[in-house]
Amino acid sequence: MKIEKRLEELGIELPLPATPVANYVTTVQTGNLVFTSGHGPGTGEGKIYKSQLGTDASVDDGYASARQVALGLISTLKHALGDLDRIKRVVKVVGFINSSADFTDQPAVLNGASDLFVEVFGDKGKHARSAVGMVQLPGGIPVEIEMIVEIED
Amino acid sequence: MKIEKRLEELGIELPLPATPVANYVTTVQTGNLVFTSGHGPGTGEGKIYKSQLGTDASVDDGYASARQVALGLISTLKHALGDLDRIKRVVKVVGFINSSADFTDQPAVLNGASDLFVEVFGDKGKHARSAVGMVQLPGGIPVEIEMIVEIED
Amino acid sequence: MKIEKRLEELGIELPLPATPVANYVTTVQTGNLVFTSGHGPGTGEGKIYKSQLGTDASVDDGYASARQVALGLISTLKHALGDLDRIKRVVKVVGFINSSADFTDQPAVLNGASDLFVEVFGDKGKHARSAVGMVQLPGGIPVEIEMIVEIED
Repeated sequence: MKIEKRLEELGIELPLPATPVANYVTTVQTGNLVFTSGHGPGTGEGKIYKSQLGTDASVDDGYASARQVALGLISTLKHALGDLDRIKRVVKVVGFINSSADFTDQPAVLNGASDLFVEVFGDKGKHARSAVGMVQLPGGIPVEIEMIVEIED
Repeated sequence: MKIEKRLEELGIELPLPATPVANYVTTVQTGNLVFTSGHGPGTGEGKIYKSQLGTDASVDDGYASARQVALGLISTLKHALGDLDRIKRVVKVVGFINSSADFTDQPAVLNGASDLFVEVFGDKGKHARSAVGMVQLPGGIPVEIEMIVEIED
Repeated sequence: MKIEKRLEELGIELPLPATPVANYVTTVQTGNLVFTSGHGPGTGEGKIYKSQLGTDASVDDGYASARQVALGLISTLKHALGDLDRIKRVVKVVGFINSSADFTDQPAVLNGASDLFVEVFGDKGKHARSAVGMVQLPGGIPVEIEMIVEIED
């Protein structure tokens, strides 16, 4: 339970795992790969949930939101895998950033997730990623993130 | 041919498989995974093909369109695999929804595909997914969907 | 070194590989698959880098830009794999096209990448792909592309 310990050291408490409300699931494992559904920042208190970068959310707001989404993804993976130590590598992260027509700093927003993955998983957390600008997202959330992780045999 | 029988029971007739018009193909298999190209709703009759959610397409229109796209994907997979029973699991579905600046119900639109996959494939049809809002799509289609399926050894 | 030779025959000189400026990497290998980060057209001279299809970039501009991005991806893969002959198949390509509200020719833009992959890799370069329209992209680039390749055992 090294990763659990690391989360404790970092003072991180995971949110509840996501619960799908339709005919899909939050993760699917195929071979050694686990694909997640796109996650949003959830419904905790005091956070910016409905907002858009370049309109009413700053890069700092977006960074915080991406970090929140990443915490939710880790929670979902913990729920699916039982033990986060089973994660061998964060393979790929796609960050869909709710963007105004002239917002071009999607990477700085997605860093909120990338930085967390490396804080928590170390070198195993270093991933390939794409950051792109969306005209809108479900429920008006500022950030949606999906990921692929590789797990131990 | 269980899935074929299931399609019959549901009264579903598959459209023709997609035919690429450039230097790409509709599916690529790698190991046990099959990746599809992004599919649109095709060119059948009486459907809304060029439209945008929040502009001139309702959520119901979008749902119907996503279902139509999903039928096309199943047709493409049948063409590629020979037998749909070879599908072990629908792994991942990404729904790119053509959205106005204030349309935030992408998940309800993508349900048109998710519901169909579960109707046709049962538990094997339960997938991870992401639903996101696009400023525009090829040919002005309302919905584009790509997917990954796992096949039997 | 067949692919290197092919690049020479085509008179293609690869740009420098991408260098991430945050907590992510340009490629991750998992099993026989290599996932790349999203790449943009880089910072060479005389190219259109900050532009949008349907606003201030033509389809030809976009095609040239997608080809430039694809060259960067090949350079990144060469850097990661040592030898491009290790590539068994280009599996999947996603083209995120910076699009005005009414630009609908994303596929013609992405052909700049698809055509190059087939020129360079032949049948191994034939991939599944998705082309979609983004409201904005990092740094205002016209095209961002991510890909998955399968490598030899």
